Amino acid sequence: MQEITVDLGSRSYPVFIGKGISSSHELLADLINTSQVLVVTNKTIEPLYLPQLMQALSHCNAQSIVIHDGESYKTLSTINDIISELLQNRFSRDCCLVALGGGVVGDITGFAAACYQRGVSYVQIPTTLLAQVDASVGGKTAVNHELGKNMIGAFHQPLAVVTDIDVLHTLPDREFRAGLAEVIKYGLIRDSDFFQWLESNIEGLVNRETRRLEYAIQRSCVNKAEVVSADEKESGLRAILNLGHSFGHAIETGLNYKHWLHGEAVSVGMLMASELSYRLGWLEQDSVHGIRSLLDGAGLPVKLPELLSPEKIRELMSVDKKSRDGRLYLVLLKEIGQAIVTDEFGEPALQETLARFPSISEAV
Amino acid sequence: MQEITVDLGSRSYPVFIGKGISSSHELLADLINTSQVLVVTNKTIEPLYLPQLMQALSHCNAQSIVIHDGESYKTLSTINDIISELLQNRFSRDCCLVALGGGVVGDITGFAAACYQRGVSYVQIPTTLLAQVDASVGGKTAVNHELGKNMIGAFHQPLAVVTDIDVLHTLPDREFRAGLAEVIKYGLIRDSDFFQWLESNIEGLVNRETRRLEYAIQRSCVNKAEVVSADEKESGLRAILNLGHSFGHAIETGLNYKHWLHGEAVSVGMLMASELSYRLGWLEQDSVHGIRSLLDGAGLPVKLPELLSPEKIRELMSVDKKSRDGRLYLVLLKEIGQAIVTDEFGEPALQETLARFPSISEAV
Repeated sequence: MQEITVDLGSRSYPVFIGKGISSSHELLADLINTSQVLVVTNKTIEPLYLPQLMQALSHCNAQSIVIHDGESYKTLSTINDIISELLQNRFSRDCCLVALGGGVVGDITGFAAACYQRGVSYVQIPTTLLAQVDASVGGKTAVNHELGKNMIGAFHQPLAVVTDIDVLHTLPDREFRAGLAEVIKYGLIRDSDFFQWLESNIEGLVNRETRRLEYAIQRSCVNKAEVVSADEKESGLRAILNLGHSFGHAIETGLNYKHWLHGEAVSVGMLMASELSYRLGWLEQDSVHGIRSLLDGAGLPVKLPELLSPEKIRELMSVDKKSRDGRLYLVLLKEIGQAIVTDEFGEPALQETLARFPSISEAV
Repeated sequence: MQEITVDLGSRSYPVFIGKGISSSHELLADLINTSQVLVVTNKTIEPLYLPQLMQALSHCNAQSIVIHDGESYKTLSTINDIISELLQNRFSRDCCLVALGGGVVGDITGFAAACYQRGVSYVQIPTTLLAQVDASVGGKTAVNHELGKNMIGAFHQPLAVVTDIDVLHTLPDREFRAGLAEVIKYGLIRDSDFFQWLESNIEGLVNRETRRLEYAIQRSCVNKAEVVSADEKESGLRAILNLGHSFGHAIETGLNYKHWLHGEAVSVGMLMASELSYRLGWLEQDSVHGIRSLLDGAGLPVKLPELLSPEKIRELMSVDKKSRDGRLYLVLLKEIGQAIVTDEFGEPALQETLARFPSISEAV
């Protein structure tokens, strides 16, 4: 088992990475020492991993609540349901919530913990690759509003993150590959050695070879932890974690959050950011080819959905929350391993990048 | 104008106290320098003070939302309405909310600010005495759940508090007197000099004499600020601010939050805590008399509502959120000006205190 520390002073916490650790009584008994524990999970994860977890939590009087699976349940109404459960069971401020699931379960549980009696503790047990390398680390919690995703939330750091490699075996292939987009992101924004390692090991990773997987997750979490430690509340550096996300969110919004997974949209978004960076004279053409090959090798899309015009994407980027004071800030690459956040890219270069980006309908 | 600082490191902020300052363009322009400002107020306050405030905010593109007046609207649903307004107007993370109203408006606005895009700034402009001396200072924000008051919230400190003495002139007499209960509380828990001052000046205060009022508010805010600075998230000292509140909440709950105002219930609660402290040999009998006289002089109740039996109050105290691990902790007085939080009061002494406490139906 590996242990990484997210260094945030009095709010510091460990990220444990290992095989089978989500059902380790030894680890969980060490982490959670209150008698009031509520596990939050969803209907998909419940039959797979809840019984083992409840057994591992046998030292405390743990209870569980099972919510519906899906982004559409990431609402204030679900928060209200969880808080009802806590109040019905007379949970005090000393209680602990446990999020067992992917990013949606983690975001909801974290926000419920952030606001129950003005803040109680929680533990993340992420069950998707995406949540393991991204959402579970860093304390960003939120639910959606009908007018915008993640618009109601809090920065609320967990007590610990328990990342179990074994739970990835039940993850559908497409979701697994979508998670790899965020893994590749860390190489692109701040870790060129890791990017090279990924180029050499992408096949083994796609085949979920344990040792490669463990290394990739660990290295992703180290990168995430370092960025979060330097900028907990996204007032500066942390924004580089959004590489490809302004483009990606526009694609997801354009598709009404159907058809494409988040990681898939981010894949295309990162490639767009790379091409724009090339157009600005920053990134070498070879590097762009390398990025495209790696994404392709991970089984991720490198072309636009044919339904979306470049004009539509550009329009949707303007309403994204990352645009402040009417200006659009993008995460771009000076080189592989070095990201910057800038609004100085030139509108023509952005429009050309979008216009020339291949779509799925085009011949190869 | 007086200025008090709530000292919380990077989250420190000023409390301004003065006449007419809620419509001071000079002050507000100095405090709020974003172009996106949303004022939250209620239907009662709107005609009285909103126009002046909007004029004082003419330097920024301020907008307003008017919510219903009353505790029953302190819900997640109102939070959702405010966030809809923010999103419809494309407010960014750099926006600022302004709470213009009493404790309910302050709690709601503060919590909306705490969770919109994971936290934006807000300014408190309290319009009741209770909010001026208590709720507006300290960053406690919350809404109610149907199973419990203030169960969904956050610690989120404001950018500043603007306490305008002039707005108290429109406050109904009963609400004004209820606010005095919290003023008296500061004398009891940690400021015996202030308690003595109150004994000498209560008549002038009840008559809302400006200079006495300004002094009482300022001294209350200094006390509140010192306690909050020492214990922002109520892990210790801050609990003394709840003097009389365990008793008071039981009374309020027993009356279904009708008939009695919060400050009225706290008045009786503080007297109960004083009598229990006397029974434990801590407080002198003369001191208890002095406390009763002062509360009475402030026009606050010093007898129980006749509908509530001592047994019912005791039962309701057990379900209050201040009881942890099955034990009931109470704020009691070692002497006037010195509060302690303890579970070592002895059940018989508590029951006797409740049983002997006079109710309104009894002859004087």
